[in-house]
Amino acid sequence: MSTALFERHKALLDNAMSALASRGYWSAFNEMPSPKVYGETAQPDGRQLCESYFGRDFDLAQPGVQRWLSPEVSPYGVALNVRYPVCDAETLTRAGQAAMAAWQALGPAGRTGVCLEMLVRLNRQSFEIAHAVMLTTGQGWMMAFQAGGPHAQDRGLEAVAYAWREQSFVPAEAVWEKPQGKNPPLVMKKQFEVVGRGVALVIGCATFPTWNTYPGLFAALATGNAVIVKPHPNAVLPAAMTVKTIRAVLAEQGLDPNLVSLCVTDQPEVTQGLATHPAVKSVDFTGGNAFGQWLINNCRQAQVYAELAGVNHIVIDSTDAYKAMLGNLAFTLSLYSGQMCTTTQAILVPAGGIATDEGHKTYADVCADLAAAIDRFLSKPEVACAVLGAIQSDATADRITLANSGQLGRVVRPSQALTHPDHPGARVQTPVLVACDMADEAAYMEERFGPISFVVSVPDTATAIRLSERMVSTLGALTVGVYSTDEAVVDAMTAATWRSKVALSINLTGQVFVNQSAAYSDFHGTGGNPAANASYADSAFVANRFRVVQRRRHV
Amino acid sequence: MSTALFERHKALLDNAMSALASRGYWSAFNEMPSPKVYGETAQPDGRQLCESYFGRDFDLAQPGVQRWLSPEVSPYGVALNVRYPVCDAETLTRAGQAAMAAWQALGPAGRTGVCLEMLVRLNRQSFEIAHAVMLTTGQGWMMAFQAGGPHAQDRGLEAVAYAWREQSFVPAEAVWEKPQGKNPPLVMKKQFEVVGRGVALVIGCATFPTWNTYPGLFAALATGNAVIVKPHPNAVLPAAMTVKTIRAVLAEQGLDPNLVSLCVTDQPEVTQGLATHPAVKSVDFTGGNAFGQWLINNCRQAQVYAELAGVNHIVIDSTDAYKAMLGNLAFTLSLYSGQMCTTTQAILVPAGGIATDEGHKTYADVCADLAAAIDRFLSKPEVACAVLGAIQSDATADRITLANSGQLGRVVRPSQALTHPDHPGARVQTPVLVACDMADEAAYMEERFGPISFVVSVPDTATAIRLSERMVSTLGALTVGVYSTDEAVVDAMTAATWRSKVALSINLTGQVFVNQSAAYSDFHGTGGNPAANASYADSAFVANRFRVVQRRRHV
Repeated sequence: MSTALFERHKALLDNAMSALASRGYWSAFNEMPSPKVYGETAQPDGRQLCESYFGRDFDLAQPGVQRWLSPEVSPYGVALNVRYPVCDAETLTRAGQAAMAAWQALGPAGRTGVCLEMLVRLNRQSFEIAHAVMLTTGQGWMMAFQAGGPHAQDRGLEAVAYAWREQSFVPAEAVWEKPQGKNPPLVMKKQFEVVGRGVALVIGCATFPTWNTYPGLFAALATGNAVIVKPHPNAVLPAAMTVKTIRAVLAEQGLDPNLVSLCVTDQPEVTQGLATHPAVKSVDFTGGNAFGQWLINNCRQAQVYAELAGVNHIVIDSTDAYKAMLGNLAFTLSLYSGQMCTTTQAILVPAGGIATDEGHKTYADVCADLAAAIDRFLSKPEVACAVLGAIQSDATADRITLANSGQLGRVVRPSQALTHPDHPGARVQTPVLVACDMADEAAYMEERFGPISFVVSVPDTATAIRLSERMVSTLGALTVGVYSTDEAVVDAMTAATWRSKVALSINLTGQVFVNQSAAYSDFHGTGGNPAANASYADSAFVANRFRVVQRRRHV
Repeated sequence: MSTALFERHKALLDNAMSALASRGYWSAFNEMPSPKVYGETAQPDGRQLCESYFGRDFDLAQPGVQRWLSPEVSPYGVALNVRYPVCDAETLTRAGQAAMAAWQALGPAGRTGVCLEMLVRLNRQSFEIAHAVMLTTGQGWMMAFQAGGPHAQDRGLEAVAYAWREQSFVPAEAVWEKPQGKNPPLVMKKQFEVVGRGVALVIGCATFPTWNTYPGLFAALATGNAVIVKPHPNAVLPAAMTVKTIRAVLAEQGLDPNLVSLCVTDQPEVTQGLATHPAVKSVDFTGGNAFGQWLINNCRQAQVYAELAGVNHIVIDSTDAYKAMLGNLAFTLSLYSGQMCTTTQAILVPAGGIATDEGHKTYADVCADLAAAIDRFLSKPEVACAVLGAIQSDATADRITLANSGQLGRVVRPSQALTHPDHPGARVQTPVLVACDMADEAAYMEERFGPISFVVSVPDTATAIRLSERMVSTLGALTVGVYSTDEAVVDAMTAATWRSKVALSINLTGQVFVNQSAAYSDFHGTGGNPAANASYADSAFVANRFRVVQRRRHV
């Protein structure tokens, strides 16, 4: 059965492997929510399926159900009231362990085939999951579809492909024949078994409940581990839909569905207990520094893959496309109201201004022109709401209020509340832009998650590059950008990013944005600065999730 | 220059890569100390070169020399009195960091070529290094040559090959072209730079100063890191010779030799300071649990690859080759006086005895026959001394005294002191064999490093297999063996090793021994039980030692 799935999806896997090797453009799953691709009624059907869960118990048939919990509050003001089972964590752990032997017995190809089937099935659910992502995270619809659906599935497939590359390099068996001069050779038969390390815990975040969960989930699963998905309490539904599908595929294949389970809890000590459980051998985490650092410090029994906070930034030295640069930045700062781990927070601009194709622009010009570009981009309310989405958390709303107050620096452009045409209860806010000096480190040198950015006045470009290197090295960053017409500046910035280990986008003026990364081509995070200790995805993301146990005997 | 080295040694690399893929027999470096291979005068020349360091300063031209230290005491009673430079650790760290940019600029192929040249040069030094290994560790001559020379070089090459496999999979650049329907595609040029993580600290052990050092040293070096080698104070000379050669190759290539340095110290706080230094990003360690666990608990800034203590053991259920089994075990227990991290410590035998080709053997028979097999194997003093070598440390000598006293159980065969024909000052001891019951956990359930083994009486084979699983899971093991004519027993033992994650040797009766592992074919350690959190070598051993830093721009 399960080798049949490997054969059925072999082309998908081969294409993914080729894409990883070339890192050119490729996608397994169509990012356009086109009826031709997904079916004429896919959108309404998906929405209806999503809504069918509202106000009901989301039953996963998991063991150890203790009570039911309904923790989600939609940033769009939609009443969800989905009730999830709260299962005893120890029961889920033991059930996962018990399911591992049969999963191991499938072997790498068998497991890979089942994982590919899961991803293909999740792809068919893209509209349903997109709707759940939108309503729980506050993402705009299109982003929820793309990032929550096909892009997340692509990142999952990427992890499966890396896992396959590493596991398939280990031969199942070998004959070892050592010459002994004139005597007969020594001959040994050796067999190599790929075994998962144990139970994997994957802790999701509130803003990207699938995109940031699928890499760890599928990397751990493909390499032979049981997985417990612990979603953020405010974004459970997309994870619950995912786990439900995965469990259905496992059951269809005659496998124990408890290999993958959902852990919903409102008690931090439950998550902490799981993360330090002796049976838990890996923890994937996306979220804040406090809990992330707690995991790194306390999970001695597990490998922790953590994506934490950072201060992303851009150095503007000069440009030959001033308008396009401003337009590109306006989109970056507006998209999902800056609630991406990759959104630019600080824009470093020389105090003496910059050379552009429209002549010299002073620091004040850049501040004002960027504010105007944002205004222009968001001038149509329906476009604005579609791009901005809604503010996910109260904490982000509070940060906007603080930035708007002027306490963090001169407000170049205040955040304004907008009314969403479809969702009157939605909390929609435009970006706030604050001007400050490089010396005002207390303002811009900590992550202020949300639509809050600083135009930081720096003495000169060289100082900006040094500041960038220091920010990445000490605070971390997932993305850094530079605008310059001077290749020497680009080279200096490049060298700085090699030392601080952060991805660099150079002179982005078109329809590619610093806060977007493409599966199979862009590494999301380098794993080399405080913002993340791992990358989506590379060999290091998968290679330590399994171990090879060998046996040998004379032939 | 450096790409020339890659081309020159390309066949070596290709062969190593093929061997890793097939895991059949292969060796790059001849393990026979043959004059035809190594030169007619290689042996006396190597010995003379080694002796030329005695009583002198071993100058490495490293920065920050503070004083000179002569810490080694030879288990053979030979006066070495080599004085090593004690260099300021901070100076070595900064010098290593400063050397990294040019090393990174060479790129993966350039670095791989230089590493291969280093290994080839070390191979030519095999006699010199072997002599130093023998005199510092107490290994017999042949073992010192093989394990300290070609086998260590093979393990180093194995790490370089894995590092090449992972680094070469990352393309230097890519063109990413995303279709946009009827509009022109989005086209981005992306460049990917492999960067080392920082300074790597490689902490050697007293018994295998090259074999256990080369994997981490070459894995870290090949992936772009600076390396500080911190040898065990009693086995500095082989590491010093290695570092000297590596520095010479770097200098020849116009590279900064301070990329690799030797840190000799008699102050544990210096090593602790280095291991927790913010610039140190990986620590490779072979040694005891106390310091190993300290490293794992305290080195938050670094990835720790640790090989610690364990309790290796064998389950004897039945055999169709009783004499050959006993002969195989006698060799295993005698080789280097059991001072291998892979030597069997506990032999689990059913209380009711075992079925053999020579009829039923009681538990007492097995004890007595194994003792006799050891006696027989060591009956010729010159063979005995060649195989046993000398006892490396006072602690091991004390453990032998304790076991001989009967306090750990009935002494089946006491350890005897032998006089070495060439080195009258050598501390030579035969193995001690103790009989005890499974309940005597205090005796056999902790590592008693050295020629100390227990024949443990267990109720039955099934209990022995359960005990084996528990020992590996809780105490760790690098090697486990089973003897049985019943495939069901072998299968049960195999399944137990999958759960506990340890390599299994089945029915070894010929010239392959449970304590030996072959580079490119046998994984040394699984990395999945307490005896080691990493394996020599696999992708996990190299993949997290570098990061990929990308940059992208519109085309």
